[in-house]
Amino acid sequence: MRRLRWCMVGGGNDAFIGAVHRLAANLDGHYELMAGALSSTPEKSRASGEALGLPTDRIYGTWQEMLEQERQRPDPVEVISIVTPNHLHFPVALGAVQAGFHVICDKPLVHTTEQAYALQKAVQDAGNVFAVTYNYSGYPMIRQARQMVRGGQLGQLRKVVVEYHQGWLSRDDSGKQAAWRTNPALSGPAGALGDIGTHAEQLLSFVTGLEIESLCADLTSFVDGRQVDDDANVLLRFKGGAKGVLTCSQIEVGRENDLRLAIFGTQGSLSWRQEEPNVLIFDPLDAPRQMLTRGSPWLSQEAQDFTRLPAGHPEAFIEGFANIYREVARHIVALGKGERPEPNFPTILDGVRGVEFVETALNSARSDSKWLKFDGETN
Amino acid sequence: MRRLRWCMVGGGNDAFIGAVHRLAANLDGHYELMAGALSSTPEKSRASGEALGLPTDRIYGTWQEMLEQERQRPDPVEVISIVTPNHLHFPVALGAVQAGFHVICDKPLVHTTEQAYALQKAVQDAGNVFAVTYNYSGYPMIRQARQMVRGGQLGQLRKVVVEYHQGWLSRDDSGKQAAWRTNPALSGPAGALGDIGTHAEQLLSFVTGLEIESLCADLTSFVDGRQVDDDANVLLRFKGGAKGVLTCSQIEVGRENDLRLAIFGTQGSLSWRQEEPNVLIFDPLDAPRQMLTRGSPWLSQEAQDFTRLPAGHPEAFIEGFANIYREVARHIVALGKGERPEPNFPTILDGVRGVEFVETALNSARSDSKWLKFDGETN
Amino acid sequence: MRRLRWCMVGGGNDAFIGAVHRLAANLDGHYELMAGALSSTPEKSRASGEALGLPTDRIYGTWQEMLEQERQRPDPVEVISIVTPNHLHFPVALGAVQAGFHVICDKPLVHTTEQAYALQKAVQDAGNVFAVTYNYSGYPMIRQARQMVRGGQLGQLRKVVVEYHQGWLSRDDSGKQAAWRTNPALSGPAGALGDIGTHAEQLLSFVTGLEIESLCADLTSFVDGRQVDDDANVLLRFKGGAKGVLTCSQIEVGRENDLRLAIFGTQGSLSWRQEEPNVLIFDPLDAPRQMLTRGSPWLSQEAQDFTRLPAGHPEAFIEGFANIYREVARHIVALGKGERPEPNFPTILDGVRGVEFVETALNSARSDSKWLKFDGETN
Amino acid sequence: MRRLRWCMVGGGNDAFIGAVHRLAANLDGHYELMAGALSSTPEKSRASGEALGLPTDRIYGTWQEMLEQERQRPDPVEVISIVTPNHLHFPVALGAVQAGFHVICDKPLVHTTEQAYALQKAVQDAGNVFAVTYNYSGYPMIRQARQMVRGGQLGQLRKVVVEYHQGWLSRDDSGKQAAWRTNPALSGPAGALGDIGTHAEQLLSFVTGLEIESLCADLTSFVDGRQVDDDANVLLRFKGGAKGVLTCSQIEVGRENDLRLAIFGTQGSLSWRQEEPNVLIFDPLDAPRQMLTRGSPWLSQEAQDFTRLPAGHPEAFIEGFANIYREVARHIVALGKGERPEPNFPTILDGVRGVEFVETALNSARSDSKWLKFDGETN
Repeated sequence: MRRLRWCMVGGGNDAFIGAVHRLAANLDGHYELMAGALSSTPEKSRASGEALGLPTDRIYGTWQEMLEQERQRPDPVEVISIVTPNHLHFPVALGAVQAGFHVICDKPLVHTTEQAYALQKAVQDAGNVFAVTYNYSGYPMIRQARQMVRGGQLGQLRKVVVEYHQGWLSRDDSGKQAAWRTNPALSGPAGALGDIGTHAEQLLSFVTGLEIESLCADLTSFVDGRQVDDDANVLLRFKGGAKGVLTCSQIEVGRENDLRLAIFGTQGSLSWRQEEPNVLIFDPLDAPRQMLTRGSPWLSQEAQDFTRLPAGHPEAFIEGFANIYREVARHIVALGKGERPEPNFPTILDGVRGVEFVETALNSARSDSKWLKFDGETN
Repeated sequence: MRRLRWCMVGGGNDAFIGAVHRLAANLDGHYELMAGALSSTPEKSRASGEALGLPTDRIYGTWQEMLEQERQRPDPVEVISIVTPNHLHFPVALGAVQAGFHVICDKPLVHTTEQAYALQKAVQDAGNVFAVTYNYSGYPMIRQARQMVRGGQLGQLRKVVVEYHQGWLSRDDSGKQAAWRTNPALSGPAGALGDIGTHAEQLLSFVTGLEIESLCADLTSFVDGRQVDDDANVLLRFKGGAKGVLTCSQIEVGRENDLRLAIFGTQGSLSWRQEEPNVLIFDPLDAPRQMLTRGSPWLSQEAQDFTRLPAGHPEAFIEGFANIYREVARHIVALGKGERPEPNFPTILDGVRGVEFVETALNSARSDSKWLKFDGETN
Repeated sequence: MRRLRWCMVGGGNDAFIGAVHRLAANLDGHYELMAGALSSTPEKSRASGEALGLPTDRIYGTWQEMLEQERQRPDPVEVISIVTPNHLHFPVALGAVQAGFHVICDKPLVHTTEQAYALQKAVQDAGNVFAVTYNYSGYPMIRQARQMVRGGQLGQLRKVVVEYHQGWLSRDDSGKQAAWRTNPALSGPAGALGDIGTHAEQLLSFVTGLEIESLCADLTSFVDGRQVDDDANVLLRFKGGAKGVLTCSQIEVGRENDLRLAIFGTQGSLSWRQEEPNVLIFDPLDAPRQMLTRGSPWLSQEAQDFTRLPAGHPEAFIEGFANIYREVARHIVALGKGERPEPNFPTILDGVRGVEFVETALNSARSDSKWLKFDGETN
Repeated sequence: MRRLRWCMVGGGNDAFIGAVHRLAANLDGHYELMAGALSSTPEKSRASGEALGLPTDRIYGTWQEMLEQERQRPDPVEVISIVTPNHLHFPVALGAVQAGFHVICDKPLVHTTEQAYALQKAVQDAGNVFAVTYNYSGYPMIRQARQMVRGGQLGQLRKVVVEYHQGWLSRDDSGKQAAWRTNPALSGPAGALGDIGTHAEQLLSFVTGLEIESLCADLTSFVDGRQVDDDANVLLRFKGGAKGVLTCSQIEVGRENDLRLAIFGTQGSLSWRQEEPNVLIFDPLDAPRQMLTRGSPWLSQEAQDFTRLPAGHPEAFIEGFANIYREVARHIVALGKGERPEPNFPTILDGVRGVEFVETALNSARSDSKWLKFDGETN
């Protein structure tokens, strides 16, 4: 498979998530980083680009400049990864889509549903690939879980519990990563809810296929002076009658990146923890608990396809993230051959739904009415 | 320490919880079972009493008969354990208290707050000991957790998550234990919420000392035709600003008796699981996670006093339950010596608060208003 | 079932294992403690007996006195538990057997094979019940494991690994329990090997039915001045070709009572840890790992019979120990009815084999020859 | 940092370990694969090279051809990774070293100590970099463990237990990977002992710095007709008095890649499992157990340097492997600048010691004498 010509907006020298995107893209060798507008100032962008060994003429001072110049090159980049703070997702993504590039955008997609719908329309109009890096859906055992739900091994779904526990924002001195994530001008109107709650929402939707009908949220800002939520607890009602609990927090001292999913149906249940991602616990009705492990021959074909190593040789975060990148690359290459595959990665639709989720939860938290639908009506 | 003269109401041949009470009372040898009204018919009571080796003249056909006759004996029983289905708790407890016996009553205390307040008044009037077997508060590591919270090792509390996951009622064919627990005439107006939700509420209150200010509940009956909830998810707001989530379910296939408590403060957090009760996880701010284990010399004095075996020789459910029985026995003996100790076991107050919790949650679930106080007012 | 008249030798006020025996015997109410020679001096014995509420005339100053006087009573005790330091096991057990009492003796049985064979002969001559409290064989999931091995679910056994890790003797200041266990006059010629290595040997033999053909041992005394081993590593060869590793240590800082058993056959394997005794891991060939949990309906009849509580309500050390006491009580009662059941508890044969194991391992450790048979011949 | 010009011998289309080497080398982008002799026949090599997108003129039919032609190019590869079956390690490595290339060679190094010493001499003569991919030493928490041992946090070491449990060779039908690993002509004289026992030996030596003085081994071939060991249990004595147990097996049904290390000293102990590599358990004497997790700020500088992601975002096998590749790249680049750094990766010395270990264990297993030194003398 040929390597895609690739560039980044954001991801400069001391960015966390930009480095992760590069590790993920490097792993299988499907992307070649050729250009970048990597930081908030031209000077920093240059320094970062040089550190990455980019050709001097393709280290850009601004993303506008990059879009402009790349589209005029004979060998322009094909895919743009957007790994900036959240407030830039909308203008950069819109610009990139309208300029005809494929886009891989970090989450949450944008600040408001208004932006989300505008971007969604632009993507539909342009017909380009638009992936959102809800990376946890790239884990092989998450793919296995989805296949089992789809295959009916859990029977009819009744209840879903998704939890995302972090503690790194338990006080007001957590460095650069914290600074922009708790500044609503940069992060958007939500804090924990946007940063990790959207991961939780996407993971449960991805695996179960359930659609949230209405929700009831309680949000808190525990740290003095913080302008966004750092703790969110949300009751969920799904179409068809299933119920759910989504809880996320960034002030739970001692919790690292403790994302958990539990799904209960009439015929069985599944449990998974991101910090031990190679194991999926399956409890069939009337039979002993099973520990399903990545790399086992009895897993679904998709779980095996998303796996690189034999059982017991653990895979983890980067590999799961890389699976998203690989699926996007495969998709783009297939499109180039005139195929029309279904995207097997989170798309603009996941991104839009995440923004709707955040907005509805924010509204619910402010409301005295118990249940709020996505359209803002009380249930 | 002398053995207390003891009897039971309920706890016949195929009862689950009655047998547990006997194991717990036997363990330390502080109780001698001398009488019983063990079952719902005189015939069954007799059979059960004989199987337990009770003297024939103290195997009673009804609890009324037992109260009547025992109080006239020269050596009457001192303590009555009530281990019947819930609907009998109120009349038996009231009768026993008014007849002057000490009472150990299973949970939930009674069906309504009206009954609860009446019983509370009777207990206060009589001045007798009234324990409620919220047995999970008898675990040594729960005592350790409470001491750590009280000692300030967690700083100011911010968030509590208490979960109680069971799966044994995931369908409509789970035998005798299930039958009465899902019949509101016998179990009271709540199902899972009363049976295990009250345990969860008591455990979090016991350990944290937090008081629920208001709550917002979503209850479900998933099994067709079931008249009580089998799944309950409750958002909590505590006086002083802490937040909480309480979730309990009896339809989560594969979960056995998975009660979990997590407490987050500004200076640290604690996590505990009932199915692995000898370990308490402590995450101090800015230091590595600690696994505190029962029997270790660095635990609090109370945790050590609640322990019978050295570290690594696991203790479990019966021993925790027995700690409640032992504390009650110590208390009764101390009273007999004219001492006035503070009760170190769950009392009528815990029982009453549990009923208030259930009633408020039921009301909240029916209400469109988000937050309901214990007094039934919206927040 | 009637209560057996029971007494103890050893088990005074500050003894660890005597208290455990009483908890275990109390739990099901099959024993009534009626007499005792509880400590090393008449004064201490008296104080301990009074603390336990024994009748004054049955608190004996010496075990000899107790044997002598009890046999002359009209209602003598039936069963004697021997819970003294090891050096007294032989004389007390021999005396008790010859005086016609049933005996429950702690492990290791005696100091030498010479003593062991003499005692074995006395037991055979007397025809009495003689149990050895290898209590780990009382755990329900150990019974389950044995049934699965016997039922062929593991195929042909190939390898067994049994480990017993403790750390409490990692230095020379560990109190009274340590003092006698590291004094060869009291503990016998072995330290860790006798105290916990014999448990490990019995557990593997009990579950697998394999017979050790020869062994190769390395023993160490790590703590300066210690006269017995505190660490033992033993390679095992079983009749029929299976292999094994037995390792035990009391100097492994941080390990509490970490006894583990793993059994590998051609068709599957089993893994169990004493510190999490309610779970048995089963790995069938070509199928996912199963977590078998105590109390589940798919377990063997014996595992269910050895269980008191529903799944998820954990049982632990005392309950497992109590199962041994219960089986002994059942056996004695059955004998009294003229039945001739197979003992379902560890007997003098386990005790003797344990002493042979210790003696062979000690000889092997001193030998330059690699493999030593139980009869002392090199292989 | 510039990218090193890199080639592979072995690692064709369906090879396991070759693909792992490429993932590891890709991750950080320090290597560019430019040439290869990837398979056992020129046709397969060509197909594999094309699949990897190698330039046609640098896809070689044999490794001899590659060495010959590359050294004559103006831009020859600098580093050769050898990922063939074991029997080719010696000739290819010797050829590559003598031709002046840097070498990254898989383990075990070679079949015999004779070969090992010859290769060691060639490396010393040539002065080139020679790394052996004992990849488990690349895990961050293993680096942490080594730093803690070196820093004295465990006090004086007493005991080490290293276990490597696999089950994939429990029968005779396990595919291509199995075929060459159980054929002594290809794998060398040892089976499990060479394939995974050498990993275990290297890991314990790397972390503890202990030197094996003598050993006593029991090897078994459980599968009918198998010509090499598939199970090995080895008692170890270290210089200075510490003791150890090394056990490895490939017939333990259900075990995937279960490598474990436990180290016990006078002041504390450490425990680690490869299948959960982000956690290192530390038991300090007289204090609670600590769970040290990758990415925490209180870890050693080296552990942090070997880490790419924040705590809770798990890293795993590939990342650990990649750390070895990264260290080799840094070393080569530093040498190119005239620096003389100490290698921070396993070298020819680890490779040679591994071969000595295997040979001594094989000799010991055949011997009736208990303890064998590395020089073949009995102790």
